[in-house]
Amino acid sequence: MSAAPPRGFASDNNSGVHPEVLAAIAAANEGHVLAYGDDEYSAAARDRIREHFGESAAAYFVFNGTGANVTAIDALTEPHEAVICTDVAHMNVDECGAPERIAGIKLLQVANTGGKLTPGGVSRWEAHRGDEHAVQPRVVSITQATELGTVYTLEETRAIAGAAHELDIYLHVDGARLANAAESLGASLREVTTDAGVDAVSFGGTKNGMLGGEAVVFLRPELAESFLYTRKQLGQLASKMRFIAAQFDALLTDDLWRRNAEHANGMARRLADAVTAIDGVELAHPVEANGVFANLPAAAIHRLRDALPAAMPFYVWDETAGTVRLMCSWDTTAEDIDELAGALDSVMSDVG
Amino acid sequence: MSAAPPRGFASDNNSGVHPEVLAAIAAANEGHVLAYGDDEYSAAARDRIREHFGESAAAYFVFNGTGANVTAIDALTEPHEAVICTDVAHMNVDECGAPERIAGIKLLQVANTGGKLTPGGVSRWEAHRGDEHAVQPRVVSITQATELGTVYTLEETRAIAGAAHELDIYLHVDGARLANAAESLGASLREVTTDAGVDAVSFGGTKNGMLGGEAVVFLRPELAESFLYTRKQLGQLASKMRFIAAQFDALLTDDLWRRNAEHANGMARRLADAVTAIDGVELAHPVEANGVFANLPAAAIHRLRDALPAAMPFYVWDETAGTVRLMCSWDTTAEDIDELAGALDSVMSDVG
Amino acid sequence: MSAAPPRGFASDNNSGVHPEVLAAIAAANEGHVLAYGDDEYSAAARDRIREHFGESAAAYFVFNGTGANVTAIDALTEPHEAVICTDVAHMNVDECGAPERIAGIKLLQVANTGGKLTPGGVSRWEAHRGDEHAVQPRVVSITQATELGTVYTLEETRAIAGAAHELDIYLHVDGARLANAAESLGASLREVTTDAGVDAVSFGGTKNGMLGGEAVVFLRPELAESFLYTRKQLGQLASKMRFIAAQFDALLTDDLWRRNAEHANGMARRLADAVTAIDGVELAHPVEANGVFANLPAAAIHRLRDALPAAMPFYVWDETAGTVRLMCSWDTTAEDIDELAGALDSVMSDVG
Amino acid sequence: MSAAPPRGFASDNNSGVHPEVLAAIAAANEGHVLAYGDDEYSAAARDRIREHFGESAAAYFVFNGTGANVTAIDALTEPHEAVICTDVAHMNVDECGAPERIAGIKLLQVANTGGKLTPGGVSRWEAHRGDEHAVQPRVVSITQATELGTVYTLEETRAIAGAAHELDIYLHVDGARLANAAESLGASLREVTTDAGVDAVSFGGTKNGMLGGEAVVFLRPELAESFLYTRKQLGQLASKMRFIAAQFDALLTDDLWRRNAEHANGMARRLADAVTAIDGVELAHPVEANGVFANLPAAAIHRLRDALPAAMPFYVWDETAGTVRLMCSWDTTAEDIDELAGALDSVMSDVG
Repeated sequence: MSAAPPRGFASDNNSGVHPEVLAAIAAANEGHVLAYGDDEYSAAARDRIREHFGESAAAYFVFNGTGANVTAIDALTEPHEAVICTDVAHMNVDECGAPERIAGIKLLQVANTGGKLTPGGVSRWEAHRGDEHAVQPRVVSITQATELGTVYTLEETRAIAGAAHELDIYLHVDGARLANAAESLGASLREVTTDAGVDAVSFGGTKNGMLGGEAVVFLRPELAESFLYTRKQLGQLASKMRFIAAQFDALLTDDLWRRNAEHANGMARRLADAVTAIDGVELAHPVEANGVFANLPAAAIHRLRDALPAAMPFYVWDETAGTVRLMCSWDTTAEDIDELAGALDSVMSDVG
Repeated sequence: MSAAPPRGFASDNNSGVHPEVLAAIAAANEGHVLAYGDDEYSAAARDRIREHFGESAAAYFVFNGTGANVTAIDALTEPHEAVICTDVAHMNVDECGAPERIAGIKLLQVANTGGKLTPGGVSRWEAHRGDEHAVQPRVVSITQATELGTVYTLEETRAIAGAAHELDIYLHVDGARLANAAESLGASLREVTTDAGVDAVSFGGTKNGMLGGEAVVFLRPELAESFLYTRKQLGQLASKMRFIAAQFDALLTDDLWRRNAEHANGMARRLADAVTAIDGVELAHPVEANGVFANLPAAAIHRLRDALPAAMPFYVWDETAGTVRLMCSWDTTAEDIDELAGALDSVMSDVG
Repeated sequence: MSAAPPRGFASDNNSGVHPEVLAAIAAANEGHVLAYGDDEYSAAARDRIREHFGESAAAYFVFNGTGANVTAIDALTEPHEAVICTDVAHMNVDECGAPERIAGIKLLQVANTGGKLTPGGVSRWEAHRGDEHAVQPRVVSITQATELGTVYTLEETRAIAGAAHELDIYLHVDGARLANAAESLGASLREVTTDAGVDAVSFGGTKNGMLGGEAVVFLRPELAESFLYTRKQLGQLASKMRFIAAQFDALLTDDLWRRNAEHANGMARRLADAVTAIDGVELAHPVEANGVFANLPAAAIHRLRDALPAAMPFYVWDETAGTVRLMCSWDTTAEDIDELAGALDSVMSDVG
Repeated sequence: MSAAPPRGFASDNNSGVHPEVLAAIAAANEGHVLAYGDDEYSAAARDRIREHFGESAAAYFVFNGTGANVTAIDALTEPHEAVICTDVAHMNVDECGAPERIAGIKLLQVANTGGKLTPGGVSRWEAHRGDEHAVQPRVVSITQATELGTVYTLEETRAIAGAAHELDIYLHVDGARLANAAESLGASLREVTTDAGVDAVSFGGTKNGMLGGEAVVFLRPELAESFLYTRKQLGQLASKMRFIAAQFDALLTDDLWRRNAEHANGMARRLADAVTAIDGVELAHPVEANGVFANLPAAAIHRLRDALPAAMPFYVWDETAGTVRLMCSWDTTAEDIDELAGALDSVMSDVG
């Protein structure tokens, strides 16, 4: 909590709140309004989401990413159904089994290709349709941007939507970093979702500069028929909802969402350029959003950790492969990048 | 907070954030810290809770009241077990069946006496102990202050704890308004919980002036053994945890929790005094915390609604009995009370 | 079945298999047939059920009563919905919380009147329709014959169906003793269910002389849309299904179901006549099926237990009220009745 | 249902009941006994299981294989925990997601090697121990004999138990065909389970000649602490339990279990010998129990189906690889084998 702490690369969740978002919270702190979303702030934020995702978009605010994914999946499935996702999907590896336990469904994993699923990963599950012994796929969930820092093109998303819809399967997007993906593609939020055939989105706000809050956005409103109950029952209904709503309103005003994503993505590109210039360091995946995955010699990883201040942590993604994950945030500075790159350069000189 | 909109009486959830809490949020918005509670703000807030509840208190921050209750119950039970509570318990009537669905348990309801449970309501379930066809009581949950605005005395709490522990049953307190209860009793948070034999508490912050956040506090730390997983799996783990922690820190600093409760309780007493002075209006329950339950003639209820500004709503608690619920908040003003009482007085003159 | 052991009155589950049922099992034990119900025996039994319940009846065989109830409820509800039933309903008190845990729903209890629910017990739940904080009633479940040995008349059933359907609520019948009820009413299985507005039935076979097996019968086939998966997922799909099917075929051949029920009901009436002739013994409920609930002085209960052979147990239903439950079965003999009545008579003489 | 139908190769579930088992059922059909397992037949069968599995064996009878696996897993885990199994495990692909939905756990799949898991497949999950975002492995479940007709040697089982116990993980065996495995190894039931470090077994009776019934056998009785409730709640408690118990008693008398397994395994070896003698047909896996997996040209599969009587079905296991599954049963005859082999031989001549 000292004067000028640098920003680390461990997670875009480690950053704080963007000043415009914090100002919006303070501005919403005026008198009494009805709880649970029946207020003007919430109505305004829902309108904003319709502006950005299209008229069909029905938005419901929730607390966090796991809450968004699990309530969305619960709404789209019955318990004997299944969700197709990649092996590295956040819902498969980082939600402590919440989709299975809470929605009761099974996740059908497909080996990822650069973090992504392909249409073939959907259609291959057709075989067991109608077999009472087998779970029935009802949703395919892709993460956009992916957990490996890559981004589905609009064509790729459309192709998956096509393969899914052919089998009466919904396309869900885990969009914890949807802003980063849209910015990367130079596309609107609508183009990366609604127009590409997506049926429901977990639209992330927290990593994009909010204090806390996500939105489940149904692009076919009929899918949300009993979602009010689902959200309440799964513990994701905020009483003082206006404060999540006001944050989304801020994010969707003057394209703050895009400004934040642009900054984070730009920092990631700067970092990618810097590290690829260092002998012995290679990118593990293309850098298409705000995450840089780099392969280093095992010895370098530990030295790098020692070389950086404690306030600049990062994650070892794959111990065996020597892959580190370096996440950039809306508040990462060029100086942060340069400090990291400089440290890595000198570590690699020593190791090499 | 400008002069303009008055505060209504529909819910203490309709109020906003106390300025000291908002300031604490802003102060915590400094640089990067580790996500998910592994940060100094969270450590400090956990320390604060230990100061207030006793050294054994292990606190875990969650998003909302349903989240606190359900994760606590889930931690204390196996699915074939049961939770004893009153028929009017929030978890029985206002959580959309979350305890049953998520924790898998059954709620065993006992008819309330002035909102309260008695030791006999616990011991009566002993009969089916060991019968494989019947759920096995493992927790008794009481709400403090109760849903009807009453407060368990320390002796009452201790007696229930005694009856519970005799049967190897834990005592959980749904403390969405624990601050109001402790203030009402002139007791510390520790005296109303730990010292009275309580095993686990859902300690409410939101209704007491926070933006959003509750704490599950285990007073026997061994009960929290796998709670980190439970909290994550049930969607109650905040990534930017520091902002919930900072709010609790503010609430527990300079006894802001008690100041807020004192104000709200005081407004409720002022309101109680005012309405009992009106002919034809009676209190439905003793006013011991921040809620006033009053019985009016049916005709008066509708007229009162019309007589008040739209920004001053209240709830009809029991249509048949003509009971209205009038909740006071940390920000309710004497003018709000007087406006309400005045409107009721003139309505009753017309009706009478 | 040799002369030797007498039959007790503890439960109609304590009886064995009717010889015609056992013969049907043996007859079905011929070569290989497809597993899981895709065989001629199962098709034949499903046809039989259609003959008895009407053309719309879609039958699915399961293992036991809890399995039938829980799979039926699961099929008829989403987890934020609720099932209205009496406080003494088997699913409320004798299934170890299975409906809550497995289907995720909440049971809304209504105080019974002679074991029964009334239309008012359904319509009173209308108040919270559409409130996201409250579970939404979707099913009313009545037990026929009731847990207290009484039988809903056709008019009573129709009235409940009417009240339910008006609120878009399904009527489910827990028919563990449906045969006894139909026989008691002199009605067909169709008259007590389909024609009375029932939507789904747990049709009991085990207590009526089978080795083991129940049928979930949907009278609106669209409700069974995904029931094959539900049955499998909830562990109620028999691999060697033919042997459950053959038992039902036997039960529904030459009205064995009715012959067994007639016998058991007749024995209960004989018992009722005998005990009411004894001074100091009173019926707790009208004897309308195969169960006799009698009130005795506390001292008599223990003496009666001592007076009877160990092989003639019975249940104390309500220790406080001194109510004993005496169940008759398809194989209870007049001698069994007379032995019990004789013992009771002499015990009462001693006690009186 | 004609005079002398042949036996097919689709499943050992398609067979009927062994005459000795049927006789035991009839013999148990004598008078009344207490329901739910509190009877002498059940006590005797539990004793028999102790004789065969060792003194520590606590046996609980259930209805079917999914019921046995799911209740066992539920007893061994909390919902944030996980079960390690192969990708082809019955519980992973053939139980319609029951383990996930009912026990709430996640299955962690490991690619099989000849149907088997290896110790490395257990220890590789150590990495996420203690990470609140990841499910925590608590059970490894192996199928014995495997779904691919292979059998874990005693050493292999012991090695997996060792790897599991080192990480505080229990070893569960899905023993739907445990009899076939033990017979194949020339080992006792105890040697393949208790003595090899197994903690709990789903011991199959149905495929081994019973009408229906399985046993969950805990080899560390403390693991069964609340299993009576679990079994009831998950719908696996038979009221007329004596009839499942009597079947197990028959199976474990005069080693009927081994005689049945020996016959089925022998038939499988006869079939393996016959088909490997045919040009163009290859075994897909070693034949170590009662299943034969053979690779045929795609054209041959369809011709073979046409060449066989309708009463002799078989499964195509893997359409792409051209693998068929040919299961032998306790009642498969040498003539059945010869008819199948003859048909295949002539089909292959045509195709070749």
